Amino acid sequence: MLAEETTLVEQTMEAIRQRIAGRTLAPGSRLPSIRRFAEDMQVSKSTVVEAYDRLSAEGTIISRPGSGFYVAGQLAPLSLAEIGPKLDREVDPLWVSRQSLEAGGDFLKPGCGWMPPSWMPEVAIRKALRSLSRANDAILTEYGSPLGLSELRHFLARRAGGYGIDASPDQIILTGSGTQAIDQLCRFLLEPGHCVIVDDPCYFNFHALLRAHRVNVISVPFTPNGPDVAAFEQALIAHKPKLYITNSGLHNPTGATLSPVVAHRVLKLAEQHNLTIIEDDIFADLEHEHAPRYAAFDGLERVVHIGSFSKTLSASVRCGYIIARPDWIDGLVDLRIATSFGAGHFSAELVLSVLKDGSYRKHLDALKTKLADTMGTTAARLTKLGIKPWIEPRGGMFLWCELPKGVNAADLAQRALARDIILAPGSVFSITQSADNYVRFNAAQSQNPKIFEVLEDLLG
Amino acid sequence: MLAEETTLVEQTMEAIRQRIAGRTLAPGSRLPSIRRFAEDMQVSKSTVVEAYDRLSAEGTIISRPGSGFYVAGQLAPLSLAEIGPKLDREVDPLWVSRQSLEAGGDFLKPGCGWMPPSWMPEVAIRKALRSLSRANDAILTEYGSPLGLSELRHFLARRAGGYGIDASPDQIILTGSGTQAIDQLCRFLLEPGHCVIVDDPCYFNFHALLRAHRVNVISVPFTPNGPDVAAFEQALIAHKPKLYITNSGLHNPTGATLSPVVAHRVLKLAEQHNLTIIEDDIFADLEHEHAPRYAAFDGLERVVHIGSFSKTLSASVRCGYIIARPDWIDGLVDLRIATSFGAGHFSAELVLSVLKDGSYRKHLDALKTKLADTMGTTAARLTKLGIKPWIEPRGGMFLWCELPKGVNAADLAQRALARDIILAPGSVFSITQSADNYVRFNAAQSQNPKIFEVLEDLLG
Repeated sequence: MLAEETTLVEQTMEAIRQRIAGRTLAPGSRLPSIRRFAEDMQVSKSTVVEAYDRLSAEGTIISRPGSGFYVAGQLAPLSLAEIGPKLDREVDPLWVSRQSLEAGGDFLKPGCGWMPPSWMPEVAIRKALRSLSRANDAILTEYGSPLGLSELRHFLARRAGGYGIDASPDQIILTGSGTQAIDQLCRFLLEPGHCVIVDDPCYFNFHALLRAHRVNVISVPFTPNGPDVAAFEQALIAHKPKLYITNSGLHNPTGATLSPVVAHRVLKLAEQHNLTIIEDDIFADLEHEHAPRYAAFDGLERVVHIGSFSKTLSASVRCGYIIARPDWIDGLVDLRIATSFGAGHFSAELVLSVLKDGSYRKHLDALKTKLADTMGTTAARLTKLGIKPWIEPRGGMFLWCELPKGVNAADLAQRALARDIILAPGSVFSITQSADNYVRFNAAQSQNPKIFEVLEDLLG
Repeated sequence: MLAEETTLVEQTMEAIRQRIAGRTLAPGSRLPSIRRFAEDMQVSKSTVVEAYDRLSAEGTIISRPGSGFYVAGQLAPLSLAEIGPKLDREVDPLWVSRQSLEAGGDFLKPGCGWMPPSWMPEVAIRKALRSLSRANDAILTEYGSPLGLSELRHFLARRAGGYGIDASPDQIILTGSGTQAIDQLCRFLLEPGHCVIVDDPCYFNFHALLRAHRVNVISVPFTPNGPDVAAFEQALIAHKPKLYITNSGLHNPTGATLSPVVAHRVLKLAEQHNLTIIEDDIFADLEHEHAPRYAAFDGLERVVHIGSFSKTLSASVRCGYIIARPDWIDGLVDLRIATSFGAGHFSAELVLSVLKDGSYRKHLDALKTKLADTMGTTAARLTKLGIKPWIEPRGGMFLWCELPKGVNAADLAQRALARDIILAPGSVFSITQSADNYVRFNAAQSQNPKIFEVLEDLLG
């Protein structure tokens, strides 16, 4: 159909919708015949046929074969407003997620955990979509295999090999997201009332996720080289936790990287105390050099490795993965089928297509250079305001910063939100409330000078 | 890049992979320079550059700027075999799912719960993918809003209106699948140890799902008009269940439809006993005429309505939805963020695009006619073998059939699997084991005469 005809169809649909909204056509009443309406609207009969078909498809009107088209019985009540950021909501672990996900385009989001769209590999994604539109009909319409697309799992096994993680593709399960991967593992490994260790500070959504599992959460101070090993050992003795959830590669929110000696000591303690470790490696592609991975040292005995593509490829394609010991795979697949049934082909095919595209590696190289620059600029701008980066991260997008003395981060975040700026206050990253005067900045989302003007104003 | 060049790049990549596999290029060793390798392979330097880039992207080789390309440190172990259907696995609620999802193309699948690819609207899907490849970069790369694509929720609200369900778009949450919708609701509504009612027989995956929630499951006999109301009341009195999970529209596995009087009585009982009802309406688009919906009678007070697009649009696009009372939405969104973070744009945009396409309604009309024909043929073929349909369903794809006396369905299913045919034995649909001589047939997957030949042979 030509573009011009499409417009006519849409105009005709809109005319009918308006008559229905204004009750010129009441619910249940018969629509004019196609011939009469075509004359009425001065359009062709085929335009009216198409408009009636599409309005039937969306449920606005109903087709009764042999009798004609009727206005649908009940109109859905109109939504008064889309849900927007709530200024009065308590600053809890879900606060930053909801603000960031719900905010409209007017908001600046130095507190959010992902890149702006213009930093993502959109050309490769468009190419992948066009190529997917030519895939065979099984890929377009059927469930995927329980583990997920084989070729992508082979790719991920090779990539894991690059980090020293020795895994067969059959040890990899694709999931709906990185978060969902952790969620499935928690269901697989935990019972309500169990104890879980996280870092202090850690990614705030770990707190929200673990709350949904009704487990007890304790935290261990995080140093620039990994968790504080002495405190970690004390926690193991005192609380007998089943699980430790952390980031490998680049730590969220601190941007810190694990040192080999800390990795080795934590693993020794894990073995002594029968602790399982989930390492969430979603920032892997933003590293300049590979930091140690627990899974590489441990050989996937008691470490489960998870990842996703939301940070460097697309958050619109939901796809994550689990790399685990072979004897856990069957149980994890059963759980996955029980709770979300089959995997889809689309996300996995799309991710694979972009990863395989030669341009993706170049995109990452350019991205890392750009990020490093922006990290430098952002750190300098913050330091000028008396906001001090805790460390100089070796990669990634996060700067974990201490506010000037006496400034409460949650309070600052509430006041910034009223000025259309979303911050990530330290309190949401720490269950011990030890980070109340810290803020996490995302350098990639901190390019607009207005952010620093407002901060200066609010701190002044 | 021209197709011919692409082939050369792939050939070059394959040549390098073979040298690595054969250890001509050992892990850690430096690859030949681009110039030398281009001469070696008789290809252009740009072909080698592209091949090296793509091999870097997949992690087979590593680029060290200023130094060259190196074979990645460790090769991932090769998978010995993809997981195939396991003949010896116990026939439990996950048995049919796994057999159906894992089976290769050689298997006939009258036991599976979805349509063959050729019955799905692939033209509209291809068109939607092409159109998505031209979407703006936020759609291509960013998280969606917490509730999911607004326009799709408006569409679904109008569609629900067509079933008499009066819901605002803000009462609708998009999920990763229909199963995931039920899973989220179970997490929202249930505690371990609670009691849940299902139909006897019911969709087998409800059993698997509820097992993951550690609840007690009881079942009530299902009649051709809905649950047996007297038994339902007794179960409410005896077990004080919190939740009843059932199908509306078309029942799985029986193909039965709810009558208005049963719907009304069940709702009255639900109110008296403070019971919540989840109605899973994933077969809605296969009805010839709309059966009653609990949510329409109840006004979404104590009924939650869920659906997906896997059965009539595509199972490759993972997208489901929840329609619930307004005061539950915030809690459900929080749970969704905690356990799977943001929604993606892709699936929702794709589904919306197909639903809006005028061709989709026509596709459904043709599909329903074809299904009705096939149902007739299949029922006749089964009856000839002494396999008797329980009822003549008013729509959908399922025929719930009684086997000849003395034939055990699970045993028959095991023997059929050895002949490359996947059946859905009654035992997996019933926790009381009252359906051991029933089998569910999917008419859309029962067109191959071999199925009936093998059945005749196995029953003979």
